[in-house]
Amino acid sequence: MADFKFDIKENLGTISESNKGWTREVNVMTWNNKKPKVDIREWDEKHEKMGKGITLNKEELKKLKEILNAIDLDELKVE
Amino acid sequence: MADFKFDIKENLGTISESNKGWTREVNVMTWNNKKPKVDIREWDEKHEKMGKGITLNKEELKKLKEILNAIDLDELKVE
Repeated sequence: MADFKFDIKENLGTISESNKGWTREVNVMTWNNKKPKVDIREWDEKHEKMGKGITLNKEELKKLKEILNAIDLDELKVE
Repeated sequence: MADFKFDIKENLGTISESNKGWTREVNVMTWNNKKPKVDIREWDEKHEKMGKGITLNKEELKKLKEILNAIDLDELKVE
């Protein structure tokens, strides 16, 4: 499947697990041997197949953290 | 482009902007008129074109916030 190279360096946490066993995770990973970034994405159990997600550098991760900390999640009109 | 319907209800924050004017954003949005979820994704300036991203429900968003708050981002070996 992979015509590109990826390498999960460190799992920072698991967001959720689907009933099919796929997990949504926050990982430090590299793509095609480039410098490591943080990646938020869905994975199958063997971490061979992946779903869509987003890759963030450190500045972006800090900004995401800031955004999430500024919101009252309980008030959010979200399922 | 869109053979599915999407609707951005509320922008919760902008993570970054590329030199091509695309922005990475956290939005409350709906897909195909389903219930609103939180979405982290890249958009062109008119919010007509979108990049890959991830959609999270409230529980997942809380968990992501928890994970990010448990990490010392400055210590992360990430670009």
